[in-house]
Amino acid sequence: MKLTILGSSSALPTSARNPSAHVLNVHERLYLIDCGEGTQMQMRKYGIRISKINHIFISHLHGDHIFGLYGLLSTFNLMGRTLPVNIYAPENYGKILKSHLSDFDIQLSYNINFTPLKGRKPVLILDDKYLTVTAFPLKHRVPAFGFLFREKLQDRRIKKEMISLHNIPISKMHGIKKGEDLVKDNGTVVKNEELTIPPPEPLSYAYCSDTRFFKQLPSYVRNVSLIYHEATFDKEKEDLAELTGHSTTTDAATVALKAGAGKLLIGHFSSRYKDVDQLVEEARSIFPETYAAEDGKTYLITHNKIS
Amino acid sequence: MKLTILGSSSALPTSARNPSAHVLNVHERLYLIDCGEGTQMQMRKYGIRISKINHIFISHLHGDHIFGLYGLLSTFNLMGRTLPVNIYAPENYGKILKSHLSDFDIQLSYNINFTPLKGRKPVLILDDKYLTVTAFPLKHRVPAFGFLFREKLQDRRIKKEMISLHNIPISKMHGIKKGEDLVKDNGTVVKNEELTIPPPEPLSYAYCSDTRFFKQLPSYVRNVSLIYHEATFDKEKEDLAELTGHSTTTDAATVALKAGAGKLLIGHFSSRYKDVDQLVEEARSIFPETYAAEDGKTYLITHNKIS
Repeated sequence: MKLTILGSSSALPTSARNPSAHVLNVHERLYLIDCGEGTQMQMRKYGIRISKINHIFISHLHGDHIFGLYGLLSTFNLMGRTLPVNIYAPENYGKILKSHLSDFDIQLSYNINFTPLKGRKPVLILDDKYLTVTAFPLKHRVPAFGFLFREKLQDRRIKKEMISLHNIPISKMHGIKKGEDLVKDNGTVVKNEELTIPPPEPLSYAYCSDTRFFKQLPSYVRNVSLIYHEATFDKEKEDLAELTGHSTTTDAATVALKAGAGKLLIGHFSSRYKDVDQLVEEARSIFPETYAAEDGKTYLITHNKIS
Repeated sequence: MKLTILGSSSALPTSARNPSAHVLNVHERLYLIDCGEGTQMQMRKYGIRISKINHIFISHLHGDHIFGLYGLLSTFNLMGRTLPVNIYAPENYGKILKSHLSDFDIQLSYNINFTPLKGRKPVLILDDKYLTVTAFPLKHRVPAFGFLFREKLQDRRIKKEMISLHNIPISKMHGIKKGEDLVKDNGTVVKNEELTIPPPEPLSYAYCSDTRFFKQLPSYVRNVSLIYHEATFDKEKEDLAELTGHSTTTDAATVALKAGAGKLLIGHFSSRYKDVDQLVEEARSIFPETYAAEDGKTYLITHNKIS
């Protein structure tokens, strides 16, 4: 599981930071989270294959999280895409997208499966081979949602030496990977624990942007391996954060701490911060494993560290 | 008069070329022509002051010419703009813009003066201190317009030595600059030609994108100093150009030649051309003073050369 940051600015981009967009790679399947202006150019710049994007998650309908989607959908078209695209976005977007396509007379060569996000409770929105995705409500000036990506628990792994030792037939391997014991032709039973090792613990990634602090948030992302949380402002700007529906460094670090997260990546920085070291330091005083998101950087998500 | 290219790709951007956007600088006033996705980031990258843009000209309603406008209008807002913005675009855009602002709940801090473009004849759309701008019809798959920017003829310039020789009073200078003779207190008349030199010939710039070739086009841009003309395809791809409503290198060069243009800048290249030297060579065989547009490059418009 690895995460590439394509944009880490807040609403006003800077020369170093584009508006929000993340690409999560899970077993070489790519999931796009938010799609600020210029996302398709950032993908080209950082070697993300545009044609491999099948799922797009939009947190909320503010321009810095979505104005790149129109261009990306057109580009899919120009590339001759036929595979459907799955878009998950606040419910109003269905109507907006429909008028957009008609206003600009765009005939898509592929289907869009639109999943409207609504409500005030976490909802499972995707369940595929390798992971589940849950949308959970955030608190911003407009309806906003965070996303929790959790790898599924993989099969147990059969120890190589056991295959030859017990002559395990291919027909029984599937069951053993799922936890069954081996019953030999002569009736002997070999316990599953002896034959297999447990799979790695599933990894997880949570995206929380944009939001003000609220006390239920940590419960939505419990024990996540890596949490990305917006930290638009430094810790002194609580009032401004409250007013604009954003978080401070303290808010972000508090959520990570209370959630029992492995690592915290902060971003969505206000353009006033030319240097974000101070923001990282502030967050680290509460949650030491904090890092600053950087455009173009890829973070490997592991149980113990991001690198 | 100088022109900065912010985007020279056709609909599909590449790692080297962004979608269409030009900035024309006339006596330090900036005019934005088309606004493809990423235009505001390109402005930051190439040192164009966003707050100095007061006039935005949109050739047609295809995404690669307009999808950056939403972000730019939001950025104006975030920068606290109060000066009105003048937008000139095909008439449908008025309605589209209105629903966009309402869909995304955007309250602008400034006014937009919208000039709808329509009809099949050239129309004067702007007349300010230094220049006039005429919109003229192009032929594309949707209503499309080119723009001709003509500097106004400046005043004649009084020769320095004449001021002291004839003791020209300040009160008469304005009239002399406008072409009047000097009538001295003793009744002597000094001819204007003796007192002044003519102003430099006005410069001009024409933007023609997107369009197929049609025979009236050169008459709309007669004697222009610099013409930018799309050359999406090489000369062999006439059929594709016709089908998609675009031009080949031959078309672009023919327009420049028949218009009696000073220089030709070609762009809006299909992403299939990794190297555009061949396209320039093809155009040069008809119109030798052809150059390829490059993102980030600024071209000085003069009577004899662009540099």
